[in-house]
Amino acid sequence: MILAAERAARPSDFAEAPPHEEGRFCPFCPGNEGATPHELLRRRAADAEGAEAWSVRVFPNRYPALRIEGELVRAAHGLFDRISGVGAHEVIVETPRHDLAFADMSIDGIAEVLRVWRDRIVDLSRDERLAYVSVFKNQGAAAGATLVHEHSQLLALPEVPRDVAIEAELGADHWRRKQRCLTCDIIRQERGEGVRIVNEGERFVAVCPWASPTPFLVWILPKAHASHFDSSSDDLLAALAGTLRSVLRKVGEALEQPSYNLALSSGPLRGEPSPSAHWRLEVAPAVTTSGGFERASGCWINSTPPEEAAAFLRKVAAP
Amino acid sequence: MILAAERAARPSDFAEAPPHEEGRFCPFCPGNEGATPHELLRRRAADAEGAEAWSVRVFPNRYPALRIEGELVRAAHGLFDRISGVGAHEVIVETPRHDLAFADMSIDGIAEVLRVWRDRIVDLSRDERLAYVSVFKNQGAAAGATLVHEHSQLLALPEVPRDVAIEAELGADHWRRKQRCLTCDIIRQERGEGVRIVNEGERFVAVCPWASPTPFLVWILPKAHASHFDSSSDDLLAALAGTLRSVLRKVGEALEQPSYNLALSSGPLRGEPSPSAHWRLEVAPAVTTSGGFERASGCWINSTPPEEAAAFLRKVAAP
Repeated sequence: MILAAERAARPSDFAEAPPHEEGRFCPFCPGNEGATPHELLRRRAADAEGAEAWSVRVFPNRYPALRIEGELVRAAHGLFDRISGVGAHEVIVETPRHDLAFADMSIDGIAEVLRVWRDRIVDLSRDERLAYVSVFKNQGAAAGATLVHEHSQLLALPEVPRDVAIEAELGADHWRRKQRCLTCDIIRQERGEGVRIVNEGERFVAVCPWASPTPFLVWILPKAHASHFDSSSDDLLAALAGTLRSVLRKVGEALEQPSYNLALSSGPLRGEPSPSAHWRLEVAPAVTTSGGFERASGCWINSTPPEEAAAFLRKVAAP
Repeated sequence: MILAAERAARPSDFAEAPPHEEGRFCPFCPGNEGATPHELLRRRAADAEGAEAWSVRVFPNRYPALRIEGELVRAAHGLFDRISGVGAHEVIVETPRHDLAFADMSIDGIAEVLRVWRDRIVDLSRDERLAYVSVFKNQGAAAGATLVHEHSQLLALPEVPRDVAIEAELGADHWRRKQRCLTCDIIRQERGEGVRIVNEGERFVAVCPWASPTPFLVWILPKAHASHFDSSSDDLLAALAGTLRSVLRKVGEALEQPSYNLALSSGPLRGEPSPSAHWRLEVAPAVTTSGGFERASGCWINSTPPEEAAAFLRKVAAP
């Protein structure tokens, strides 16, 4: 668990009554750049006019879960373990337009965001105290977002988080026994069966995974084996942008523009390319509430078979 | 994941507009017993009047995640595993009174509910196909409840669920190295430090655990080592009812009657008493929304240190 007491003070677009929304100050809008912490990265739009014009901006989260300052200290507290909250928590504003949905952006615009994710991971990997970067996007209140202007976030962590480590170990175990990548095996089986495929392009395949914990969960997988997202070429990310936008539009059409989470799973920082790990992007519509059972067991009850979700998403147009 | 397509059809008190609430039909109210599936257990109140009077009723969930009928089949599907949905999904109506909150029930009434949990686990453990019973309560829409009349649920599963198995293995590993129960060690440390204790009685201690993933999470732990909740005596459950009610009232007072989850963690069915496993009851106020980071990492960001939550709960009166 990450303890971040300062985050209790952060504002929310959703906590207040919706009528106030219209006139609210948005710290992510052009002209309000001074309201955010110091900029870490700015991309200029190809068609930008004026010195200030930007298409994507990155800056530290004003209410960070982790901070880049300070020494990394690991200590025992009796039986318990403590590690200092060294890391980074950054905000990636994905478009200057307050009212433009991520799925309505151009493929070029989405590809720019993906390149920014990659470039931030590469930059953060120079800090030897950091072990892993989690990139994610919470869109809509039900998905945990607090501001409506489209943005993603990244957390750079001093440890590989639990579920990422568990999955890496599953993949490593499969490799030891078979000398094959588990995700490559899954892609081969899914392409053979076809029933859980949402769409497939030259370089990416989107599937509703076997035993999906939640309805309409989609994995976007690079067809060529690769353990690290941050080694992706501009070309690969352009292809990813196309598949991602298509999946988001299908999900939006199928579920009437649900809140959703987007999350990148990739290899640890400064790790050698691994034959057993395979990066992916996960699109998870926030359409269910977990209860006491899920909380205590780690097991989810899903009322929508992934085969049905995939069949539905295949049919839905992605305009 | 448990696939339960029929559950998509279940009704909800919360999905419709609140104004309808008043006049809605409640299948859990006295007089409507015919609207529920066949009764599995009924407890008569000591002060009950009339042949129909009951204090607690148990029946199968009308929209079950698992069913007791059928053979237990385990099969491979290429790389994937499938196990038939054999199990039980039961509803425990905790009071005949539609408008009585669980925390406002008498200690005797709550103890009756806990005895019913125990007796249902004992009964289900006769079914050799079942491996684990999860007992939980979702109170309020934010905690995943669909009906307001107070009730808990149980899921009897053909496998020990993932997170329960991971925790059992942690405890077993601690035992192998130290020949001590990890939870007994934690209780000793918590009682020594005092800072994370919410309250302590003769037989139970309530703590906000170290590195709580969510704010105001409370564990209620039996002070005497015991791996299985279902081996509890009536006396022990009476003591548990007192501690549980006090914790729920404190949490209700501190957070203005939040939605909450209650979940029991106990040993597997028909397991020998284990020196390394220690059952507990968990009270988790549903005050945060998880986002893409939590989803992908299994790591939670908590803005309330457990020491602060416990200090606050210690001070709050539990009327």
